[in-house]
This record gives sequence, C-alpha cells and structure tokens, in this order.
Amino acid sequence: MSTSQNTQTPGRAGLVVSAHSADFVWRAAGTIATHVAQGYRMKVVCLSFGERGESAKLWRKGAEMTEAKVKAARREEAQRAADILGAEIEFLDIGDYPMRVSDDTLFKLVDIYRELQPSFVLSHSEKDPYNFDHPLAMHVTQEARVIAQAEGHKPGEKIIGAPTVLAFEPHQTEQCEWIPNTFVDITPVWDRKRAAIECMAGQEHLWDYYTRVALQRGVQAKRNIGITAARDIKYAEGLMRLTPTVTEQLS
Amino acid sequence: MSTSQNTQTPGRAGLVVSAHSADFVWRAAGTIATHVAQGYRMKVVCLSFGERGESAKLWRKGAEMTEAKVKAARREEAQRAADILGAEIEFLDIGDYPMRVSDDTLFKLVDIYRELQPSFVLSHSEKDPYNFDHPLAMHVTQEARVIAQAEGHKPGEKIIGAPTVLAFEPHQTEQCEWIPNTFVDITPVWDRKRAAIECMAGQEHLWDYYTRVALQRGVQAKRNIGITAARDIKYAEGLMRLTPTVTEQLS
Amino acid sequence: MSTSQNTQTPGRAGLVVSAHSADFVWRAAGTIATHVAQGYRMKVVCLSFGERGESAKLWRKGAEMTEAKVKAARREEAQRAADILGAEIEFLDIGDYPMRVSDDTLFKLVDIYRELQPSFVLSHSEKDPYNFDHPLAMHVTQEARVIAQAEGHKPGEKIIGAPTVLAFEPHQTEQCEWIPNTFVDITPVWDRKRAAIECMAGQEHLWDYYTRVALQRGVQAKRNIGITAARDIKYAEGLMRLTPTVTEQLS
Amino acid sequence: MSTSQNTQTPGRAGLVVSAHSADFVWRAAGTIATHVAQGYRMKVVCLSFGERGESAKLWRKGAEMTEAKVKAARREEAQRAADILGAEIEFLDIGDYPMRVSDDTLFKLVDIYRELQPSFVLSHSEKDPYNFDHPLAMHVTQEARVIAQAEGHKPGEKIIGAPTVLAFEPHQTEQCEWIPNTFVDITPVWDRKRAAIECMAGQEHLWDYYTRVALQRGVQAKRNIGITAARDIKYAEGLMRLTPTVTEQLS
Amino acid sequence: MSTSQNTQTPGRAGLVVSAHSADFVWRAAGTIATHVAQGYRMKVVCLSFGERGESAKLWRKGAEMTEAKVKAARREEAQRAADILGAEIEFLDIGDYPMRVSDDTLFKLVDIYRELQPSFVLSHSEKDPYNFDHPLAMHVTQEARVIAQAEGHKPGEKIIGAPTVLAFEPHQTEQCEWIPNTFVDITPVWDRKRAAIECMAGQEHLWDYYTRVALQRGVQAKRNIGITAARDIKYAEGLMRLTPTVTEQLS
Amino acid sequence: MSTSQNTQTPGRAGLVVSAHSADFVWRAAGTIATHVAQGYRMKVVCLSFGERGESAKLWRKGAEMTEAKVKAARREEAQRAADILGAEIEFLDIGDYPMRVSDDTLFKLVDIYRELQPSFVLSHSEKDPYNFDHPLAMHVTQEARVIAQAEGHKPGEKIIGAPTVLAFEPHQTEQCEWIPNTFVDITPVWDRKRAAIECMAGQEHLWDYYTRVALQRGVQAKRNIGITAARDIKYAEGLMRLTPTVTEQLS
Repeated sequence: MSTSQNTQTPGRAGLVVSAHSADFVWRAAGTIATHVAQGYRMKVVCLSFGERGESAKLWRKGAEMTEAKVKAARREEAQRAADILGAEIEFLDIGDYPMRVSDDTLFKLVDIYRELQPSFVLSHSEKDPYNFDHPLAMHVTQEARVIAQAEGHKPGEKIIGAPTVLAFEPHQTEQCEWIPNTFVDITPVWDRKRAAIECMAGQEHLWDYYTRVALQRGVQAKRNIGITAARDIKYAEGLMRLTPTVTEQLS
Repeated sequence: MSTSQNTQTPGRAGLVVSAHSADFVWRAAGTIATHVAQGYRMKVVCLSFGERGESAKLWRKGAEMTEAKVKAARREEAQRAADILGAEIEFLDIGDYPMRVSDDTLFKLVDIYRELQPSFVLSHSEKDPYNFDHPLAMHVTQEARVIAQAEGHKPGEKIIGAPTVLAFEPHQTEQCEWIPNTFVDITPVWDRKRAAIECMAGQEHLWDYYTRVALQRGVQAKRNIGITAARDIKYAEGLMRLTPTVTEQLS
Repeated sequence: MSTSQNTQTPGRAGLVVSAHSADFVWRAAGTIATHVAQGYRMKVVCLSFGERGESAKLWRKGAEMTEAKVKAARREEAQRAADILGAEIEFLDIGDYPMRVSDDTLFKLVDIYRELQPSFVLSHSEKDPYNFDHPLAMHVTQEARVIAQAEGHKPGEKIIGAPTVLAFEPHQTEQCEWIPNTFVDITPVWDRKRAAIECMAGQEHLWDYYTRVALQRGVQAKRNIGITAARDIKYAEGLMRLTPTVTEQLS
Repeated sequence: MSTSQNTQTPGRAGLVVSAHSADFVWRAAGTIATHVAQGYRMKVVCLSFGERGESAKLWRKGAEMTEAKVKAARREEAQRAADILGAEIEFLDIGDYPMRVSDDTLFKLVDIYRELQPSFVLSHSEKDPYNFDHPLAMHVTQEARVIAQAEGHKPGEKIIGAPTVLAFEPHQTEQCEWIPNTFVDITPVWDRKRAAIECMAGQEHLWDYYTRVALQRGVQAKRNIGITAARDIKYAEGLMRLTPTVTEQLS
Repeated sequence: MSTSQNTQTPGRAGLVVSAHSADFVWRAAGTIATHVAQGYRMKVVCLSFGERGESAKLWRKGAEMTEAKVKAARREEAQRAADILGAEIEFLDIGDYPMRVSDDTLFKLVDIYRELQPSFVLSHSEKDPYNFDHPLAMHVTQEARVIAQAEGHKPGEKIIGAPTVLAFEPHQTEQCEWIPNTFVDITPVWDRKRAAIECMAGQEHLWDYYTRVALQRGVQAKRNIGITAARDIKYAEGLMRLTPTVTEQLS
Repeated sequence: MSTSQNTQTPGRAGLVVSAHSADFVWRAAGTIATHVAQGYRMKVVCLSFGERGESAKLWRKGAEMTEAKVKAARREEAQRAADILGAEIEFLDIGDYPMRVSDDTLFKLVDIYRELQPSFVLSHSEKDPYNFDHPLAMHVTQEARVIAQAEGHKPGEKIIGAPTVLAFEPHQTEQCEWIPNTFVDITPVWDRKRAAIECMAGQEHLWDYYTRVALQRGVQAKRNIGITAARDIKYAEGLMRLTPTVTEQLS
C-alpha cells in the first residue's frame, strides 16, 4: 500500500470515477501517479468490475467460470494497480453491460466528494458510441458533484467547492468527440503506469496499445509547449477539461 | 509611459492583436494590466484604427470631419489607454470595413512574434457575424504564429515556441459561438481598466456595458473556483483558450 | 391574485415550466408580464421548490431549519412574484437535486397543456452542466407537448396544436450552448420584473446580476432592430426559439 | 409470405428496429426489399404499434374505438407490409407516447441480435424533437448491440461482430440533424415499397409525402454518383451511417 | 414590368442576393411574390448568370454556343421570372465557377443596401460543399450589410438598420447544414412561382424537383403551426433565419 | 518508375492532393499502394515542397542551405516515395507558409481531374489549427472538383463525375475535428508504406510516430469489422469520407 495519504499536502486531492475496474489504469494512471508524487490524495471509485463487458479473456476459460470468480479476479487486478500508483480505491459493484445507476449510488458518490474535497475529478468522455456505460459514469460523476455543492443536501455537512471536471481518453477518441485540451507530462512516472497496466492480465492485448497512446500524446504535448518550457516529454496523457479555469496568469 | 519593459521578468511576454484600436480595451485591458503587474512585457498591435466602422460619434460631427482626423483621434485614445495599462502599442493602419490583410502585414506580425517571443497571444473570436474584421484578425494572428514557428521563414532567425492562443470576449458572445473556458481575476487592476475605458471618448455608450460585463464575469468566476481558492473576485475577464495546455498539475 | 384570466383574449395563452420555484422570475418574468399586459393567460408550473439546491441562505439559518419550512418559504415567495406579474402558478413539488420525473408528473403536464391550450411554452436550456434539473425540466416540457398532441392519449379530449418552444436564459449562457435568437422588449414592464425579483429574499445576491442581464440584453436587442422599428429599448429578455416559425411576412 | 428465408445467402442478414409499427415502411422499405432481393434475411422489430401517437385516423372513429382495436389494426397493416417486402416481423408491444424501455426489452433485443447475426442494423435518427420515442428506439438499438458483443452476457452464447449502424430518414430531417451519407438505389423495388406504403390505411396523408421523398433522394443519389457508375436512379432512400466502414477499396 | 414599386408601402423592402441568375427562382420566388403582394419593394441582385456552372443544357448545343450567348439567354430568363414575380432585378455579371468578389462589387452591394433600405435580406446557405459560389454570395451579402451600417463608409449617406438575414433553401439541405427555422406560406402565390420556374428553360429537370420541395415544406409548415392559426397551407418555402428577432409578442 | 499505368484497369483512378511534398506519405501511402495493387492509376499532386514549413532539419544545416537546395532535396525524397508506391507524382511548386492558391493553380488542378477522371480524391482535413496550408489544399481540391464537373468550363472537354472526397489523417486529429469513418486495411502493403516513409530523411522523428498511427488504426479497424469479415488486420489508415456513398448493398 502506498503511504501517500500520510504525506499528502492538506486540502489537495483528486477523484477518479471509473466505469469498469480497469479504465482508470489505461486512461489516467499517469495523471494519478503524477499527483500522488506531488502529495495529492488520489481516490479511484470503480462503479463496476467490468465483469460482463470487459472480461472476455476470463469468460473464454469456459463453463467453470462464474460471475463471482470474474469479479474477484478483476478486483484483485485493480487493487494491485491502485497500490502501485499510490491511490486509494473503492468498488461500488453496481454491474455493467448495461450499467444502471440508482439514487443510492448517486448519493454514495456525493458522500465521497464531500469526504475527499477534491480539487479535480476525472471520468469518461461524455459520448462513447462503443460503450454506453462510459458516458453514464461521467454523467453521474457530474450530477453527484452538483449535489455535493448544495447546502440543502444533508444540511450541516461541509459542501464542496467547484472541482475541475476532466474527461480522460476513450478508446476511439474521434468517434467520442473527445478533444484533448490538456496534456499531463507523465514521463517521470511512466514506469509506474506501465507496471499498473501489466496488472491487467485479462486485457493483455491493450498493453501495447496504451503504451503507444502515451508515446503519441508525448509527441503532441511537446509540440504544444510554450517557449519558456524546456522540458523533454516522452510520455503524456491527454485530458479534456470540461469546466472553466480561473487564473491570474496565462501561459 | 509605463516602465514595464525595464522591470519585466526575462522571457515572459504577451501579445494582443486588436482589429480596431479600441478592441483591446473593452476585451482585454484587465488581462493586460494583470500581466504587466506580474512583470510581463505586454504588446498590443492594432491592425486598424476602426476609423470607418467604429467611430460613429466622430463622423456625426459633420462635414469638417476627415478620415485623417478620425484616425488621429483614435490613435491618441488608444495610446493613452495603453499607457495607463503599461503596455506597448503599435499601429499597422491597414484599414477597416472591410479589413484586408496583405502578406506584407502577415510578415510584419511574424516579425513581432519573433521579437517579442510571447508565451500567449490574445485576439478576437473565430466567428463574429456582426463584424467580419474580427475573425480575420484572429485568423492572421494564428497564421502568423505558425509561420513564426517555421525554420524556413527567414532562416537563421530565432523561431518561437507555441504560445497559447486565446480569444477575448466579443460583443454578443453566444452569436459568436464564443465560450469562456478561462477567467482572469482582474479585481486588483479594475481601476486601471476603467481608466483605460474612459479614454474611449467616442464610444461612451460602451463604458457601462463593459463594466457590467466585468461584473458578470466576476460572479461567474467565483462560481467556478475550486475549494482551495479562497479569493474574493469582483471583476473578471472571460477568455476562450483555443490551444491545449501542457501541465504537471491539475486544479 | 391577478385578474388576467377574466380580461384575457380568448385562445391566447402561454405556459412556463420552471424547474425550481424562482427560475421563472430571473429568466422570464418580463416576458410573462409583457404577455399578461396584452391579455394573454400566462401559467407557471414549478416542478419543485428548489428546496435543496437553491435555498442556501435558508439552510444557513441552522439546525432549526427543515425541508418543510424551506418549501413553505419558497412557495410564498414564488406566489407573490406570480401575483405581481399577473400569472397563475401551480406547484408540482417533485423534489430537486436530483430531480426525478415520473410518468405521473408527465401526464399532469399533459393535462395542463390541454387545459391551457398555449400558443407558446417557455422552459430551460437543453444543456446546463451547472444544473442537471434544468435540462430535465425542458425535456419533460417537450415530451409532454408531444403527448398532448396525440389523439390516442385520453381519446376524445381536445388535443393541442404546436405551441412554439423557447428556452429562457440560463445562468452561464455560453457553457449551456444557449444562443438568444429572440429578444423580448421588457422596458414597459421592467418595474414589475424588478418587483418580482425582490420577492426572492433568499437569493438577494442575484437581484443585481439579473438586472444587469436585462440591461445587456436591452443593448443587444437595440442593435438587432430593423430600420423600421424606432422604439427605444432599455431592458430585454433573450430567448432561444427551438421550433420553426410559420409566417406570411418576414421582417 | 416471402420465401426469402429459405433462399438467403448464409451469414447475410439485416435488422430493422422500428419505434412504431409503420416507421419501417416509410423510412426503410426500399432498403429492406433491396436486400431481400439479394438474398439477405431481413428482420423488422416493432417496439410498439404506435397505437397512441400515430393512429389519429383510427381514434377519430369515435367512442367505439379501443386501444386493443387500434393495436390489432396496426399489427395487421404492418404484417402485410412486411410480407410484401419479404421481411420477418416481430412485435414487442411496449407502448408509445411515451415509450419506456425496460431491461427485459433490452435483453430481448440482444437475443434477436445474437440469433440473427446481422451485418447491419437500421433504426431512427439519434435526435428528433418531434418524437421522443424515435431517438429512444435508436438508443436501445445501439445499447443492445454492444451487449450482444459482450462475452460476459449469457456466457457461452455466440456473440455478434460489429454490424454497421445506420439511421433511416426522419420526418423533418434538418431539425433532427440527420444527414444522409449513404443512398440506396431502390428503383428496382419501388413498386414493392409503394405497395407496402399503401397497407398503411390509417396514414394515407403520408403516401404521397414519402413518394416525393423517394423521388428527391433519387435525384440526389444520381448527383453523387462517381464517374464509373452509369446506372439510372429514379427512387432512392437516404441513410445516415453512424459507424465506420472497413474497406480495401474506395470509390 | 411589375408596377410593385409604385404601390409599395414606404419603408418596406426586401433584398435577395442570388449567386447565379436562377437561384432566386427555385429558392425564394414564393417569398418574393408574397411580399410583393403585401406592397413590399423586392429587389433581386444576380451576382453572375451562372453561365459556366449552371447552363449545361445550353453548352450541350455544341460549338456554336459562346459565353456571350449563354449569358444573354440566362439574363432573359431571369428578367422574365422577376417580372412575373413583380421584383426588380439587377445583374452584376462577376462570373462564376469560380466566383471571385472584388471590393468594387462589395461596395456596389453596399450602395444597393443603402438605396433600398431593406428590412430583410435573403441569400444562400453559409455552407454548400456542392457549390462554392453559394456560400461566397452569402458571405459578401453579410459583409456588405455590416459596411452599409457604418457611418464611416461614405460619411453623410443614410446608413441602414439591421435587416434580418435569412438563408434560402440549398439543393441538398442536410449536407449544407441548413435548417429551416422559418416557413413562409406561399400557397396563394404558388401559380406565380411555378410560372417563374417555367421561365428557366435550360434547367427543366429542376421544375418538378422544386415543386416537390414546395409541397414537402407545405406539409411541414402545417405541422409546425400553433393552435390559433387555422389556415390551410399547401405550398411553402423554408428559410433559415440567421439573425435574432426582436419582438413584443411570441407565438 | 512504377508501371502501374500500363497495367491499370481502365476507368479506375485516384487523385491525392498533398499540400507539402511529404504529406501524402505519412497520411495516405498505404491507401495509394493498396489501390495500385488493384490496378488503379494513382496520381499525387504536391502543391508545394514544404520548403519553408516542413524542412527544419535541412535548414538547420546552416548558412549554406538555400531554398533551391531544400526544394531539390524534398523533390527527390517525394519522387522516390511515389516510385516505391507505384504512383505518378506532379509538383506544382506554389510555395508554403503561407500557401497562396491562384486561379491558375486552380485551373491546373481542374485539368488534372479531367485528364485523370478519378473515382475518388484524397486531401487534408478541412480544419487544422496547426497548419493553415492543409485546409487550403483541401479547399482548392474541392473547388477544382466542382469546376471540373461544369460543362461551361472549357466547353467541349470531357467533364468528370462525382469522385468521392476523403480527408486523410492530420497530425493532431481531435484538434482538427477529423473523424475517421473509413478504415483501409493496409496490412498487405505495409512494407511499401514503411519504405516510402524512410525516404523522408528530413523528418526522421515522424517515422515511428506514423508507424504507431498505423498500428492504432489497425486495432480500431478490427474492432469495427462486421461479423462476416474474418480478415486479420494489423495496419490500417483512417480516412474521413466527406461525400455520400451510393450503394445497392449495405454491410
């Protein structure tokens, strides 16, 4: 287990809402590790284990495989990945393919926001014609954020501010109308991301795919750097920021 | 005259390309003053004086008014406003209504980019059905930026990096498909912006309009602040960032 | 109570569907009063009291505050505002943050359409990332409109025609992709709108905000007037018409 | 009854999901008949009979009319149209105005996908402000398609590939943001389409409307033909392909 | 020649800018005739004769055909159509395929705006991948409108107000992202439109196409009528209004 | 030199319009080689050599480098790449950064269309904020296509049909709003593409970048294959089809 929680800077935290238990690894592991390295408390919430839609390799083992076994395997993989990244992880186990979100689940997310007080939150793209669980996860992420801001929900509790909302990279970006307007340089933590990726034994076909994604985003990030930034970026993650920034200094 | 140039932090500069000689005041004066206060060298380029399209009050003085007189009056107003803000200003005088941009003008802008080495550049929205000079100014701003990056243009000169491109606020935002994704808190420099605004004697009807704009953007900026930011914002400017950010820390 | 019902021109009516009990005031009070003044029967339906999401000031009174008290206070404010504007008002009390719309609520709205036979209907913008109750209110407004047109719903009842659908102004217009394509001159009824606004004791911070909105829309409306219209507009409301107009005369 | 099933080429099939029982006729009858003629097995699933929203003429018969009678009449019309086209048809009878889709219905559709193994699927446009049942039908069509691809849904069953998804033509195309990127030449099967149209006794006002649609699309299809295609098109159907094509030869 | 000019209501006029000499007939003849019937002065400006791009039938007559002959034939057809509609017509003869607009042409249009003082202006859709002259015509139409509003252009002349801008129907609407938000009932003047259409001897293949367009738009217009409008519409023209309306009464 | 011209199937040809002399290699070499292998005559038109904007490595050689030398080096690289692919290549040498297209160039392209009679044409994305030459190249590609269809341009010449227009992949796809709706399997010709890529000595940093692009598109293409297609795709190119398809068979 990471000890990031003990060393974190007070008041700095980030939330990641993952529809299935591996999404946060492919799409945000570098951003998670980068912030953990800076003392952020990072928390991942997995809405489901992806037990039906994203565990093809496990199911192909045949008749002895059961949903309980698939879930257990997926939980273990995700837990190990989170440990490598230094992030906390919580599993809500609401099912997938199709995912259905009850108000009970919504309010659990509200509680998590209020306890964590994140300054930013990551989830899926708002559109994804290849996966209907993904946009739903982002929707509930945003719906819970707004309720967590409301004084009238569980009056007396500490409400949250306005954490920045960002969508991490989907599998086929252009079809999802996802445009990266933010690049996070993950070069220093790439080894951790790759190690986290390699926890996902059931989806080995994606290891190299997402390594190439990181390399491509690295090239693009370098191209978008201003003149004063002289750093050498090899690996990056692209994010789509959905909420406005408030700043005193442009760059 | 501002002494900002002498006190500036080396390597930090911003460029503002204004179609007509007053645009930079209504739309970006606060951002300019905020960066001057932080030691940035800020330079405004006015493509035209707005002598035909935005000087109605002067023309209504009747037959004795000439284009030369209108230009002189507009130049003086803009120079005074720039002085108040601590910005340099240069007038290209290429005419308005309609604005036409020659390659000669384009290359002048390229020279300015290379001399200034800005880390960001501000200009108009990419669409404006009420004013065709505005999108044209943004277009040449971006075209010049790309040429200034090319080793093959005036080989041997120092090329520029990738300054962030932002569109400042147009008059009727929604019709222009302009969406503010960045708010700059201009509360500390509001007095300077208002003083610069009041230089624009010919467009007094806009003074209160843009004061109200600053107040509305101030309210909105506050609403979009994350939990850790405790500042009190009264006045703000909205900007639409068009190019991606590269960062190591989200917030 | 307004006596508008008695003096109305037969067959002319307008419906306003407000997610929370104060929305119709900030966003449509001028349009309501303008039509009442022309003899329209105007009816406001408040889906909720905004008791959880838009009553922060009341909740801050502390432990003695209850949801019932908040609702009562909000109902009274909204009723007084409607009275000032000369509009009828009905409260469906379906809850907020999150709002959930049952088919029962949907059919109540259908009944209201059929009884009122409006020639236009106003509700929220179709997108609002700051408030998920708002787009939902517009969605049910449109869904009910279509069902009210169907002969097969409660066969034998008088169906409705095709009332124009318009979205009134959200709080952060550009983020909501809301574009005003219709301006209503509310100068003659401004005093009524301001009086209605001042009924909203719990949201005093918005009084001046929406006064400024009305002034800005007034300036914009004047700029969009054709040559034959010589009126002097000071205050206006912007609306986004979503359905086509059928006309015999352009202007 | 068509004997298309017996003569079909193995592995070639198409699915059509129709919100109401007549939609497939106006919008896709030509495409259905064209593929039947080429040996495809074509299957139509009608989610509802359109008994409430699209049976105005029947309801106007007065008090003796009942929902059961309307459904029976609509079923018979649709069955006859399907027979003329050579398509199978299945009625799920889930109700309309409003349509509500349970997970049970969703899973029935999944079963149909798996049994049929279609290479393409047709349904409604993703947006339709005139009819909320239509986009819902397309949504469930796509959601079921993704679940039918998942090994973890009913493990052991044969999953499907990635059938092309196409949206057929809505009533007011531009309002629905529907853009035809595919034209099917239906000239050789036009007589069958017209005959199927004429089964719809309750909506006679649409017969000529959709005949004109076919003629307009025919003219447009001809205009978009490449140089090598010399065929003479008189009638066509427009479709909006939503998923990518994989090919070895462009044209 | 029409005598519409003598009987017109003072201050009511409409401008139509047609890229090629037949466009105004297919796309706006009904709207023109409807307004002439109400006493409007309607003026058509044909930027070119469409001599290269839209005169295929004439060119197929073979080697004896010359550009001068084609232009003369096209001019005569357009003049006759304008006469039937009761509109003035002016030919700028700037060439087509490709169309190129000089500032001289732009300023001629400005003069026309100022002389005519129209309350609305019609031209092509802003996008048309099938015809690059069309969007260019709309662009110069809007650019000239803005210059005609500027006091500094030919100071002392009477400037114009803010005439409504509308785009008439292109040939393939959906590809042009053209959405009709305004329908004009042209049933009473349909005979005139058909007569004007039949002047276009060189494009006979379009006569029935645009008759069907008028019928389809008629059906759609009826569907979008509010409850109070009881008129029977058979033929209509669709228009896309691009500028906001200012009104005191919704409907 | 390729002998593709001699062996081509009559009437089958494709055109590729490349803004700079290397663009066709990174973005379309696989599609070119695939069609050459099927007997298509493939012709590449390079509008410029990319001598100013895309030859940084050459310019860095220092003072002895001249524009003539850069052009010569770039021409040789492009010629060798075309030879490897079996394509013809023509250089128009109109300059870059900025690119400016005269009517003379436009008409040269028209001549090429008419001589080649292509069934499809490839060029750049319609938007590219990183490179203004790219959208301009696509614009002139489409403008020339429309003129080449017009009987009135050089009357008597054989006009063209309606070749499909496709945009090949830009460097940062999402920023360019480029969405691949067509994947070409280039696995069988990958060696040729890589060999052509390696001709581009001056842009070695892009070799691996575009190899990874091909691998990613390969994975995506496989995911989008219908059930009947059992082929194994490793490398692919993505294309964005801009014009409608006319077909008799969906899949």
